[in-house]
Amino acid sequence: MAAPETISIAQIGYGYWGTNLARNAAANPSLSLDLICDVSAENRARAAAAHPTARILADGAEVFADATIDAVIVVTPASTHAEICRRAIEAGKHVLVTKPLATTVADAAAVAALAAQHGRTLLIDHTFLYTPAVAFLKQALARGDLGKPLYYDSVRTGLGIFKSDVNIVDDLAIHDIAILEHLFEELPATVSATAAASFNGLRESLAYITLTYRDGLVAHLAAHWLSPLKQRQVVIAGDARMLAWDDSRVGERIRIFDSGITRTESAVVPGRADVTYRNGEVTVPALGDTEALAAEMADFVACIRTGSTPRASGQSGVRVMQIVAAAHRSAAQGGAPAAIEG
Amino acid sequence: MAAPETISIAQIGYGYWGTNLARNAAANPSLSLDLICDVSAENRARAAAAHPTARILADGAEVFADATIDAVIVVTPASTHAEICRRAIEAGKHVLVTKPLATTVADAAAVAALAAQHGRTLLIDHTFLYTPAVAFLKQALARGDLGKPLYYDSVRTGLGIFKSDVNIVDDLAIHDIAILEHLFEELPATVSATAAASFNGLRESLAYITLTYRDGLVAHLAAHWLSPLKQRQVVIAGDARMLAWDDSRVGERIRIFDSGITRTESAVVPGRADVTYRNGEVTVPALGDTEALAAEMADFVACIRTGSTPRASGQSGVRVMQIVAAAHRSAAQGGAPAAIEG
Amino acid sequence: MAAPETISIAQIGYGYWGTNLARNAAANPSLSLDLICDVSAENRARAAAAHPTARILADGAEVFADATIDAVIVVTPASTHAEICRRAIEAGKHVLVTKPLATTVADAAAVAALAAQHGRTLLIDHTFLYTPAVAFLKQALARGDLGKPLYYDSVRTGLGIFKSDVNIVDDLAIHDIAILEHLFEELPATVSATAAASFNGLRESLAYITLTYRDGLVAHLAAHWLSPLKQRQVVIAGDARMLAWDDSRVGERIRIFDSGITRTESAVVPGRADVTYRNGEVTVPALGDTEALAAEMADFVACIRTGSTPRASGQSGVRVMQIVAAAHRSAAQGGAPAAIEG
Amino acid sequence: MAAPETISIAQIGYGYWGTNLARNAAANPSLSLDLICDVSAENRARAAAAHPTARILADGAEVFADATIDAVIVVTPASTHAEICRRAIEAGKHVLVTKPLATTVADAAAVAALAAQHGRTLLIDHTFLYTPAVAFLKQALARGDLGKPLYYDSVRTGLGIFKSDVNIVDDLAIHDIAILEHLFEELPATVSATAAASFNGLRESLAYITLTYRDGLVAHLAAHWLSPLKQRQVVIAGDARMLAWDDSRVGERIRIFDSGITRTESAVVPGRADVTYRNGEVTVPALGDTEALAAEMADFVACIRTGSTPRASGQSGVRVMQIVAAAHRSAAQGGAPAAIEG
Repeated sequence: MAAPETISIAQIGYGYWGTNLARNAAANPSLSLDLICDVSAENRARAAAAHPTARILADGAEVFADATIDAVIVVTPASTHAEICRRAIEAGKHVLVTKPLATTVADAAAVAALAAQHGRTLLIDHTFLYTPAVAFLKQALARGDLGKPLYYDSVRTGLGIFKSDVNIVDDLAIHDIAILEHLFEELPATVSATAAASFNGLRESLAYITLTYRDGLVAHLAAHWLSPLKQRQVVIAGDARMLAWDDSRVGERIRIFDSGITRTESAVVPGRADVTYRNGEVTVPALGDTEALAAEMADFVACIRTGSTPRASGQSGVRVMQIVAAAHRSAAQGGAPAAIEG
Repeated sequence: MAAPETISIAQIGYGYWGTNLARNAAANPSLSLDLICDVSAENRARAAAAHPTARILADGAEVFADATIDAVIVVTPASTHAEICRRAIEAGKHVLVTKPLATTVADAAAVAALAAQHGRTLLIDHTFLYTPAVAFLKQALARGDLGKPLYYDSVRTGLGIFKSDVNIVDDLAIHDIAILEHLFEELPATVSATAAASFNGLRESLAYITLTYRDGLVAHLAAHWLSPLKQRQVVIAGDARMLAWDDSRVGERIRIFDSGITRTESAVVPGRADVTYRNGEVTVPALGDTEALAAEMADFVACIRTGSTPRASGQSGVRVMQIVAAAHRSAAQGGAPAAIEG
Repeated sequence: MAAPETISIAQIGYGYWGTNLARNAAANPSLSLDLICDVSAENRARAAAAHPTARILADGAEVFADATIDAVIVVTPASTHAEICRRAIEAGKHVLVTKPLATTVADAAAVAALAAQHGRTLLIDHTFLYTPAVAFLKQALARGDLGKPLYYDSVRTGLGIFKSDVNIVDDLAIHDIAILEHLFEELPATVSATAAASFNGLRESLAYITLTYRDGLVAHLAAHWLSPLKQRQVVIAGDARMLAWDDSRVGERIRIFDSGITRTESAVVPGRADVTYRNGEVTVPALGDTEALAAEMADFVACIRTGSTPRASGQSGVRVMQIVAAAHRSAAQGGAPAAIEG
Repeated sequence: MAAPETISIAQIGYGYWGTNLARNAAANPSLSLDLICDVSAENRARAAAAHPTARILADGAEVFADATIDAVIVVTPASTHAEICRRAIEAGKHVLVTKPLATTVADAAAVAALAAQHGRTLLIDHTFLYTPAVAFLKQALARGDLGKPLYYDSVRTGLGIFKSDVNIVDDLAIHDIAILEHLFEELPATVSATAAASFNGLRESLAYITLTYRDGLVAHLAAHWLSPLKQRQVVIAGDARMLAWDDSRVGERIRIFDSGITRTESAVVPGRADVTYRNGEVTVPALGDTEALAAEMADFVACIRTGSTPRASGQSGVRVMQIVAAAHRSAAQGGAPAAIEG
């Protein structure tokens, strides 16, 4: 049981990702991880070994009935998120839920509205928003380091875990959709997507998504569950500088290139544009080693205590789902551009 | 002047790429590089220094009038290709022309038809078709090494030379379009493309193109003239094995991964597909060091002598242009899928 | 307290590396981690949080007096190893001790002899010996995959933790010395070493060590605590094939190159040797994901139960120390080659 | 024949490297490449094709007799360098000779003295001294960017061309010896070397060389003709910053790391040195694309015209040979440190 000043927290779901969330919850001195639920006996055994002071239960419904629990971490299959969040909020709990918030825009919006109505903190585990890398990107764009942003190009591939209730867009491309929402704070004008299910009976395991924004910015996301190359690479090009974020280059994840083109008025070479090329210095900023989930837990605690809005708020989670839904609509129409719908 | 058994060849255009073609023509013992034309005095001076036994002229029209010239290499801006090829063929010359064959499908088809009518060899300089890497890909697919092909994913980026008469699709993405045409010998069912001109007054410098084929194969091409990363990477995934071709990894350009998924009937983990994952051996084949342009020149010579059809034939050049044209149409419609048109 | 069939284990020292050993001890179902000692209050707090069922004490001496403890893991500063091991063995405990076994050959030999005399298992935590990579190397050499081994070249660099009681040879180069001892099962004929203390008052932070073996094999170890590049790379060349083991290339740690030279009898190019060069296929074996410390704990348990000799035995630990001592002697003499001494 | 204001130059030897030197000589507007000699008919045919305006001869002795020749490029096997240089200088020619200047210190010194006596320019083709990378290193050290230099660590490996008249030290490690001489302008106090001939009847194909300098600087060179990895990497660490020069990373060859350690007075962790660690920003300077051999030819021309001393002078070539000779002596004594001898 938590001391008065600590927040008693329960977790529903203790699979691969849940293990990480529970570890970070336990490590936060303001949180007391008092209850863990999972339908799998194997997962419960792992939870008991790692968190011997927590109660371990099979049935998540106990969480809602337990008045001593202040907050809930939801790490269950995506199709169950909306319902579990609804019950937790109605039981007066604050909620941290893994992405996606829900599987439809309507469900996502309903959960966000319910949290607002009940005055409960709702934080979507868009983990990347809490990384030092994304914090750096946000600042660099705000400072105008890159000039006018021209494009955002992301590649996320590898031999990923095929899900059964969501596809590659909901599971992998959604990371970039959340990052785009956070960095540019603007909904795209159009979303075009191709998503292919390469195996009969399995969900779509590859997706290519193009987002266009009002000021000419283009974003493109390539996501694969089936690739021989583990790639986690984002390029953001501006008309002044360009930036590459490669999460696999530990210690030099972000590189800023003072490179690009300059328009010239000089005499032309036939067939060539009147530009000169600049290959300047490259800088690798020191980013620090903060674990994203620790920062996320700290944000959750702070918002529960002060009532402020999390960086990965319910409202941003709804906007992410609007973009995801547009991608699904476009993919269903063979890639024809789709607009954002409420 | 060429000896009777050698082929007297002229080259029109001696810019950056022309330098490479001329060097390879001069190195082929069956070709005698007797005439080089370029409108630029600087280029003519370079040509004279490198090829002191060739005549150097400003006006390419002299080529057509010179009856001693058997064949012509055309390395001029893309917008001039069709007209120069037409005049050369009508003057009885064999033609090797840098890509694209023309800037419209109609022009490309007319040149190819003219070459057939006059019995002249027409070879499009789709250089990649002559690399040991593409030869290996062709064989690997023919042998079924990968199983059923699922997708072809290409990324070609860097700080490229901005052209003024063609855009990134005609200039860079066309490489993969030619490779796809060569590897799969089938036109795509649909082509969806986004192409953006990031700078006012310059041509489109980024493109994302998705091609879908009848049997479920998806091809995707990302091409950038403005990127901090020089990337030349193609992934081809099959349901049995996967392959990565990274042209920047000298000595280990192609890697074959015995990796993928296997369907299972086993009890399910909630939210996960019933598959197991395989991360097996990786093999890097020894490819040999043949320079592509030397192989291309050899094909040109052989076809001139025997009347056989070049690997990069006029007909394949027309099909490449049909796909390029569909990409342009899709891009003009905001990315809506376009079909191939004659 | 451990059930009869489990082995009750204590750990002395809970710093950075101790955390990993304790985690793996706790995860082994045959071990019951019942006691952890550390002089640091902060480390004791971390131990208590991670291992809430273990007793946590400041004074390691309690371990020796506690008859319920069957085995001890020693993870203290190197200068204390021999004495702690001695007391543990004399108290009837089995011992797993982090490298180096001791700081002198005499001390190491005494500990190994004591363990033999008391019939206790002594395992030196030469962790690399338990990795899938080293297991593969051992098998590849045994099968003769490389032909006759010509050289072993290791580079271990980065911004490492400067120790105060041992230098870079005892701390980092010792990994390769243990691997060499394991792979080739032969003491080198000579050891030449340069070790430099780049900062006044700190221990030697760089070392270059060359080992020559009777059959012409040369081994070379470069080790740096102060380098901008994190490198963990070993090359083993044979006269038939060559092999690179790069621990930073996750998923393709080992590559086998079918490359080398072949002697020829052909006519000579002036100044060149009569050889031809072969750049053949590269193969990346699938290694599996076993954590080395888990395999080490399993070996410890098996040896305690059966009395068999651990892979990283006390005797091999003594031989490792003999090589380390020769390196120190050579370095003290400005790099002059030193022989192995008992 | 050269015009009065141009320098008429001959080249003796037209093998692999000679091709590059001749190309750069021909491209320098102040040089007229009028004569090329090679004993191989095949090389003469290649020379004639590439340099159709030069006379092509089998016998290099003709160069000495031809009074119209002002300067000679010597690209023959190393064992012939001293004699050919001597005859050329005595015939009044300026000389550019590939490394090594000679195969003994005495011969090297005699050639350098002869050039000085005759007032002829003598430039040793230590090509790296003319690269933008080494120019940057020289400036960075002069500015004190790294603080006090602590070590220079070089790795040059790959499947190299085995020579018959010189070994890996004379052929490959010599590059770093020349760079060290240029950067630090100081002879080492001791040189320790291991060189091994892995194949009967072939020269030593691997070498490890350690050089110690008076102020504590340590240099280490690892060189292999037989390695699966093509590596061209130099690390220079200072007590303020560190630098890596990787010639295989085109476009980011040099990286400067604002990383290292700082001494602290704080309370100790047992076994750890009292230091803190700094992992700061990394900077990749823009180096420019000048070809080294073009800069070398320009230096040769300027020195011939003005009488100034080339960057890669005869005297520096002698010092390089003194270090090389010390390495040979150490290797012959099983790696015992050797001093520099006149």
